[in-house]
Amino acid sequence: MTEDVQINEGGTLRHLLTLENLSGDLVTEILDRAQNFLSVGDRRTKKLPLLRGRSVFNLFFENSTRTRTTFEIAAKRLSADVVNLNIATSSQSKGESLLDMIDNLVAMQADMFVVRHADSDAAYRIAKHVPKGIHIINAGAGSHSHPTQGLLDAFTIRHFKKDFSGLKIVIIGDILHSRVARSQIHVLKALGVNEIRVAGPKVLVPEVLTEMGVTVYNDVDAAIEGVDVVTTLRLQNERMKASLIPSAQDFYKDYGLTKERLALAHPQAIVMHPGPINRGVEIASDVADGPQSVILRQVTFGIAVRMAVMSLLQD
Amino acid sequence: MTEDVQINEGGTLRHLLTLENLSGDLVTEILDRAQNFLSVGDRRTKKLPLLRGRSVFNLFFENSTRTRTTFEIAAKRLSADVVNLNIATSSQSKGESLLDMIDNLVAMQADMFVVRHADSDAAYRIAKHVPKGIHIINAGAGSHSHPTQGLLDAFTIRHFKKDFSGLKIVIIGDILHSRVARSQIHVLKALGVNEIRVAGPKVLVPEVLTEMGVTVYNDVDAAIEGVDVVTTLRLQNERMKASLIPSAQDFYKDYGLTKERLALAHPQAIVMHPGPINRGVEIASDVADGPQSVILRQVTFGIAVRMAVMSLLQD
Amino acid sequence: MTEDVQINEGGTLRHLLTLENLSGDLVTEILDRAQNFLSVGDRRTKKLPLLRGRSVFNLFFENSTRTRTTFEIAAKRLSADVVNLNIATSSQSKGESLLDMIDNLVAMQADMFVVRHADSDAAYRIAKHVPKGIHIINAGAGSHSHPTQGLLDAFTIRHFKKDFSGLKIVIIGDILHSRVARSQIHVLKALGVNEIRVAGPKVLVPEVLTEMGVTVYNDVDAAIEGVDVVTTLRLQNERMKASLIPSAQDFYKDYGLTKERLALAHPQAIVMHPGPINRGVEIASDVADGPQSVILRQVTFGIAVRMAVMSLLQD
Repeated sequence: MTEDVQINEGGTLRHLLTLENLSGDLVTEILDRAQNFLSVGDRRTKKLPLLRGRSVFNLFFENSTRTRTTFEIAAKRLSADVVNLNIATSSQSKGESLLDMIDNLVAMQADMFVVRHADSDAAYRIAKHVPKGIHIINAGAGSHSHPTQGLLDAFTIRHFKKDFSGLKIVIIGDILHSRVARSQIHVLKALGVNEIRVAGPKVLVPEVLTEMGVTVYNDVDAAIEGVDVVTTLRLQNERMKASLIPSAQDFYKDYGLTKERLALAHPQAIVMHPGPINRGVEIASDVADGPQSVILRQVTFGIAVRMAVMSLLQD
Repeated sequence: MTEDVQINEGGTLRHLLTLENLSGDLVTEILDRAQNFLSVGDRRTKKLPLLRGRSVFNLFFENSTRTRTTFEIAAKRLSADVVNLNIATSSQSKGESLLDMIDNLVAMQADMFVVRHADSDAAYRIAKHVPKGIHIINAGAGSHSHPTQGLLDAFTIRHFKKDFSGLKIVIIGDILHSRVARSQIHVLKALGVNEIRVAGPKVLVPEVLTEMGVTVYNDVDAAIEGVDVVTTLRLQNERMKASLIPSAQDFYKDYGLTKERLALAHPQAIVMHPGPINRGVEIASDVADGPQSVILRQVTFGIAVRMAVMSLLQD
Repeated sequence: MTEDVQINEGGTLRHLLTLENLSGDLVTEILDRAQNFLSVGDRRTKKLPLLRGRSVFNLFFENSTRTRTTFEIAAKRLSADVVNLNIATSSQSKGESLLDMIDNLVAMQADMFVVRHADSDAAYRIAKHVPKGIHIINAGAGSHSHPTQGLLDAFTIRHFKKDFSGLKIVIIGDILHSRVARSQIHVLKALGVNEIRVAGPKVLVPEVLTEMGVTVYNDVDAAIEGVDVVTTLRLQNERMKASLIPSAQDFYKDYGLTKERLALAHPQAIVMHPGPINRGVEIASDVADGPQSVILRQVTFGIAVRMAVMSLLQD
């Protein structure tokens, strides 16, 4: 059902709402295009005319300057006109419904909406509602989670590891509440990764996650053994407030990615993190800044991936 | 006196401050130009170079994302550089006077100010103050009222009805406090509409309004009889708080535009609303979304009208 | 040590952090370039392609719409893509460190950061941290103080007085706490001005300032005698709150720049002020608006100076 909304009859991508059920071929098409865009960022003139004269609206119903900035940059590098709407303080307070607001923006001849909304269903509802020719990108709901994150993770892994077959990958942290984790798992499975491990305290990484086709570890040291890719997730303060974990210090001791733990992985293993990092909570500073860290490369790749998605969406 | 400020000696438009006393010829010139711009919004590349390299400042002393967005889009489609200034939180708090602030922006070589200010006099004061070559557009004071709204209303009526002569038009709601109503009345009279009716509760539509050359109805059913155009106005919450009307439900029952009421109008009548709509208060959902509603077309036309005004203003 | 950070080995400007120790030659190079840009602002199409496709980030850790606007305009007139980040409400609140945030923006292929931060050290720390090819402009810390202000002051003086040698200049107000004053003193000394006077109440203009190579006056009338340039500084409310001066009225009486006082200066003397002005506090309205005032010209020159700096910075 979801792919009905985001995939055109011909199999091309109309919206990007979720990585669930997105085929490996479509993912590869996005990554290949992002690869072509990567060099644009290194140029003096970081500009392509692909979206010239198109109107891209950043509809942020929850504040996320970081995410908004990545989409704004991607759209501007494609020469689009970008309008930022922070909607908490605007029409919504006048009681206008979400879809009435969308109808109005569509009537202003919007071409694309980048939607961030606490309600993870909002991007879907908008996508189902808009006429042909308007494209929706889900920029996440809640904490730093959205399909472009999963795509940039995949791009990063492919960049450094070339081939997905035979890779061993571990994701450490709050898998249960993390859409970053789920997005990465979806896309990596679509790309043929067989061994995906998830690790963390039982309350955040319960046994039931095996249903997603991953191996569950509550012992991080065992989970990290021999892997090619380590992703650590940001520890959300809410988890601590909810007493799901005792304290940041305890979490670091038991699950933090230290140099010693990383030494258990493959010597060429890369370290990824969706950012922003909590130094000394889920990751040690010397690992985050160390030679195996590709955390900042992920940010660079993220711009190219967002440019790729924006330029690929079609009726 | 007002036209002295907004009209050049040669009769061309220098600023757009009010529709009062604006000649039918000037209005028609704006509408004709908007007509030419209408197709720009349907293009893939929605861009004209008419204001390339000009600096347009959106000076919003009161928050209105919706209005600001329409002007921002219009300016960007004309290739202007747009700077958004939300002034509540800025210089004004440092005690800088309005005109000192304007002088500073003029010194930065601003070309155009789009002004929204609670004080309806502010746009005039700025227009009187700035040197030749700087143009002011009044983007309203208070709730969604400004001359471009009246122009887009006129554009919409012309688009669907072709000719203004012989038209019967009704405006329903809080006529007394609505600059939307007054703007529409001014412009329609300039364009030769003879029969303009206003309808609503006595406290919002008093008999004294007949001085504006309109017919006052307190019975909506009688007012709507046989008209070609129905405009419903947004019911402001403040009116209810001020106990001018008893409740939203009562207002809907007595004055809301329902299917049944609309059936009293000419079968080809169009339904307009300045937005955002209150479904089930001043208008029924099935009317707002129905075949006679042109509410979203008004939004589209509004961009073209704002582009027309921005590109027409001259010394 | 500071020039190590902002000056390249070849002597060209890499960042603009401070005017301290900036050579007269470099200052003159900036002013000459600004002179070339001045006419751009008078054109219909106020646009040069020098920074086309570059990403300029306005990083404002403290709110200053006025300053942000001048940099935004300057960058857009150079055709840069500008992203405004108001950081008080964003990543910083998620506990991300300043330099981690900068690393992320660098990874997004930023080219230039315009930094305003309450901590005057922030721009330095960023400049020391970023890789080659990224340029930092210090847009001030605290109240309206930053090196581009000193440069535009110098530009203004050169514009009206042609030659710096033999000039007598007075700065009136809170010299002790004003980076505007210090910036102006640094740059004027670099340009060869010999006679710089500072004037104001002892608590704001203590004798110790003579160490900066200026002459200290506590009698404004004596200080203004025969000067070619008078700069009055904005009186910060905090000084009054801190009881450093008794009241705005008293300050005006003793130190305000009135017509009578200005008459003591050279008949061709110009009056400057960094803005926004407090009419009737540090300056009389008729002086601010009078024939000797060049306050608004400073604003115009400021855009050209910022364009010059932005386009001059190099590895």
